This record gives sequence, C-alpha cells and structure tokens, in this order.
Amino acid sequence: MGRVTRNHSVLQLSPEGPRRRNDPVAVEEPLEVRVNGERLMVTMRTPGDDIDLVHGLLHSEGVISDAEDVTLARYCAGSGPDGLNTYNVLDVRLAAGVAPPAPDVRRQVVTTSACGICGSTSIDQVLRQSRHPLPSDLRVPAALVQSSPVRLGEQQRIFAKTGGLHAAGLLGRDGVMICVREDVGRHNAVDKVVGWALRQQRIPLSDVILVVSGRASYELTQKAVLAGIGMLVAVSAPSSLAVDLAAEAGLTLVGFVRGESMNVYTHPERIVVDAPVPAPRFPDATIARATTRAGVLDGYGP
Amino acid sequence: MGRVTRNHSVLQLSPEGPRRRNDPVAVEEPLEVRVNGERLMVTMRTPGDDIDLVHGLLHSEGVISDAEDVTLARYCAGSGPDGLNTYNVLDVRLAAGVAPPAPDVRRQVVTTSACGICGSTSIDQVLRQSRHPLPSDLRVPAALVQSSPVRLGEQQRIFAKTGGLHAAGLLGRDGVMICVREDVGRHNAVDKVVGWALRQQRIPLSDVILVVSGRASYELTQKAVLAGIGMLVAVSAPSSLAVDLAAEAGLTLVGFVRGESMNVYTHPERIVVDAPVPAPRFPDATIARATTRAGVLDGYGP
Repeated sequence: MGRVTRNHSVLQLSPEGPRRRNDPVAVEEPLEVRVNGERLMVTMRTPGDDIDLVHGLLHSEGVISDAEDVTLARYCAGSGPDGLNTYNVLDVRLAAGVAPPAPDVRRQVVTTSACGICGSTSIDQVLRQSRHPLPSDLRVPAALVQSSPVRLGEQQRIFAKTGGLHAAGLLGRDGVMICVREDVGRHNAVDKVVGWALRQQRIPLSDVILVVSGRASYELTQKAVLAGIGMLVAVSAPSSLAVDLAAEAGLTLVGFVRGESMNVYTHPERIVVDAPVPAPRFPDATIARATTRAGVLDGYGP
Repeated sequence: MGRVTRNHSVLQLSPEGPRRRNDPVAVEEPLEVRVNGERLMVTMRTPGDDIDLVHGLLHSEGVISDAEDVTLARYCAGSGPDGLNTYNVLDVRLAAGVAPPAPDVRRQVVTTSACGICGSTSIDQVLRQSRHPLPSDLRVPAALVQSSPVRLGEQQRIFAKTGGLHAAGLLGRDGVMICVREDVGRHNAVDKVVGWALRQQRIPLSDVILVVSGRASYELTQKAVLAGIGMLVAVSAPSSLAVDLAAEAGLTLVGFVRGESMNVYTHPERIVVDAPVPAPRFPDATIARATTRAGVLDGYGP
C-alpha cells in the first residue's frame, strides 16, 4: 500500500552492538475534513478508509445519521506543493436538509451553567444525542468475549509489522469478525469501523460487540453508544467516565481481557457464562478488509 | 486524592468463577480552558496539575512562551448543577501584549494551498513556530536511555493502581528524574510536564530527555521540539510523521526501548554507547510530585 507503512532506517542498539536496519513505521498524516466546502477540522490519521473515517466522525458528532445524509465524498481535486494530490483533503457534501456542523465541532462539550462542566454534563450530552436504544436482547458467550482481543490481534496486519497502531473490530455475536480497522489514533480506528457500518446501512449495530486494542476512554464509549452498540470490550483499562457513561447508557463495558480473565464493569447481564462459543459461519478471511486508496474511492467520484 | 482514581464495583470472570470486587479506575473528566474569559477548548483529562496542563497546552499552541505571559490562572468561581465547584473550568489571564488564541486553536493545521495539506506542511508549521534551537551539545549514555522507561514506570503511581494512564517524564542527563505526570491522555501528560517546566523557568529543556510510556506520535514530537528538548524516548513505536519531524527538527527519537534493546530513528549522535550511567545526585524521591488539588492552587488566587 505504501501509505500505511513506510520503511525507515533505524540504528538498533543492543548488547550485540549497534546495527543499521530498515524498519517499517506506521504512517501518520493529516486529514482535513471539509463539509460542503467549508473546513471542519484536521485529524492526524493513518491514510486509508478515509471515507469510512469521515462518515464515522460525522456520525459521532451527530451531523449525519444515515448513509444517505452524504451525497458525495471526494478528495480535493487540487494539488499540494509538489504538484501531486496529497489525498489529505476530503470534502463531504451533505444531502439537502442536513444541517452542517459548526466549525470545530469536536472537543466541544455543552455546558449547562457558568461553571457547570463535569462528567455528568458530558454523559447527558451523549444520552440526548443518542438515536438508538441499546439492544436489550443481546446475549454473548463469555468465551467469545474472552477470545475477542486475540481475534482482533489476528487481524491486525499493520500492527504486526509496525507495532504502532490501534485497532477496532466489530465482532458479531455469531462469532464472525465483520470489520477491522487500524489507525495511529484509537478514535480514528473506531470512526472507521462505525463509518463502514453506516455506509453498509448496518447502524444500529445491535448484534455486534466493539473490540478495541487499548484502553476504553469516554470518547470511544460515546462512539459505541451512538452507534447503538451493546457491548464494548477493551483489552486494557477503562476510565472513570467511560464506566459512568456505560452504566447510564446501558452499555456492557468489559476491560482487562487477558488470558482467561476479564473484568465486567457495567451491565453484565449480556454475558452468558456457560454458553459455548458459536462456530463462525464464515472464516474471518471474509471480513471487510481495509481498502487501498483506489478502493476507498470506489463508488464515489471523482 | 479522590479525583485521580476511584473505586468501581467489577464482576471479574475467570476459570475460578465470577467474583465481585472493587477495582480502582483512573478518573477522566472534562476540563474547559478559558483564555481571558473566552472559552478556548475542552479536553478530557485526569484531574490534578491542571494549571501545569494549561500552561503546557498554551505553550504547545504558541500562545505563551514564558511563565510571565500568564498573570492569573484560576478555577471558575461559579458552581455546577449540584451547587459544588466542579474544578473543571480554568480561566487563564494573559499578560498585556500577549495575543489570545483563535477559538479552538487545536487541530488546526495551516494549509499552504487549496489542497496542500500534508506531512511536510505540518512539519514546516512546527519549525516556523519553534523558538528554541535543539541542544547540539547534549550527550546521553545509551544505558541511561535504556533504563529510562523503567525509571518512568517506577514513578507511575496511578498506573500501578489502575493500569489506565499514560505517563511522561523529564529525565536529566545527570540521571535525575525531575518531573513525572500521568493522565488518561498522552498529550495531557506531556503538556503537564512541559507546563511544569515552563512555570519553573526551565524552558528550553536543553539538558533533559522526555520519556513517554506509549507510542510517539506527531503531536508528542511537536511538543518536545517546541520545548527545546533534544531527545524523545518512547517505550513503543513512533509514527512516520514523528520520525520525519524529528529528522527535520534535529530531535533524537528513540523507540521500542525494551529489555536491552532500543531503536534510534533519528540523530543518534546524542547517544554515547559506552558511557557509564551517572549516579543520580538525588534519589528520584525528590522529583516534583503530582500535586493535589490544593497544591495546584498554590501561588494562584483566589
């Protein structure tokens, strides 16, 4: 792919002495997001699946709720300082009737009074924004939850090369990993899988669990809730605000999934301890692969 | 402290069967930053050392360059929905002649042409903004670099409890760890140590290395360069843009510091392979500890 990893000359120091070699590093580049031609924000991301990323991002920000809310998404037709298209500016055209966001909508949190910003304001904001009740009938075998980080890791092709990327995956309760994305930013990885699902008309994601490679923050939990996901599984620790939001929103939050142990922080009722792990109907090889740049452009033009 | 970790009831599932217990989680809360009374941004952070955080943040954004550029930093005097001060709104008063930033200055990257945003634009922006040449005479023993993540880990008091925090530390080339901070956001941890140094009149930090617990992104590398730091050591992988920025700015970037091996990505000339590790002049116990809320307010009023 060339834009997702890049080799860099490295001096390795070890007891065997200094050694020069070429090591792959994960690519990080700015993506400028424009909505109806107006610049919205810049995010640092790993190139690839940019259109999914932007769909997921606009969904989390409450700008769009359906694939049809976007009529066109394309890279800027101009060129960079070297005369080549940077593929780092993406313009999204909203359907008639869809209100464009205020500039720099991200990192904005509504305050209810002169000094009232706190965890509960942040939680209230997500609950107000949410369009989908979380699934009350979702039941997942504990063994499937337990295995989910390993399943995610098996699909982390870029991490295996660089050790430098976060990953997010959508794992069906039937045991099928339906979409995995990697990115230097954990929020981007989640935006990419949610955006993929949005474009597939699969939101609310009531029959999947969201698996993330690192910690569970407020931001990731928010994205899960807004996508109608019933269970978020993090390999590592959750934050206090992630736990509070999950508790209030009705999300099952699982952390520290390691070896044969895991911690269920909220809503354990969705986890069935003695149920067998379903055999996948399809091998994971059929999951939606991260696409190349050409692939990203498919269906969108020009 | 109460605001940095919090106990939460957890259902632990393991082969020994389900078990209820109380586990500490790292606290994450929004901090609204106001400059001269105008809201600038909201960041999710672990409470504590907020004034250092805001100084570091405004320094990285190019708004302030000296402790004297801030005349007052205080929590909003109002109260939240429950009638209590949230300690989540911090107002910074700039000295006369210091221009306030544009709203939501973060995530803004200057574009040089209609479609020109790319890695090199981001790098140029940092180099233009930088006020301090990186130290050409800094020499650090390889063994000290090698030991730095372990030294950082020894000071990660909250991580040891929660497993949920990033950390950043300033390690003197004389072997003294002078400041360690932890936060749910890696950028906040770095802002806190840089802000601490700014308030101590220690910028440019020409005689220290910056050690971070995770990966090295563009954002962290940018903060190091702007603080005049000559060496950034990351426990894990760097991104491509971190490597490119370090190469151009003259920063020594080290990654994958594990066991007895490490990778030097750029400017290895500052690492002396056979030099002995200096004995610390002071034990690490004398480092600037993360302060309690009361401590944060010290010296600032009311």
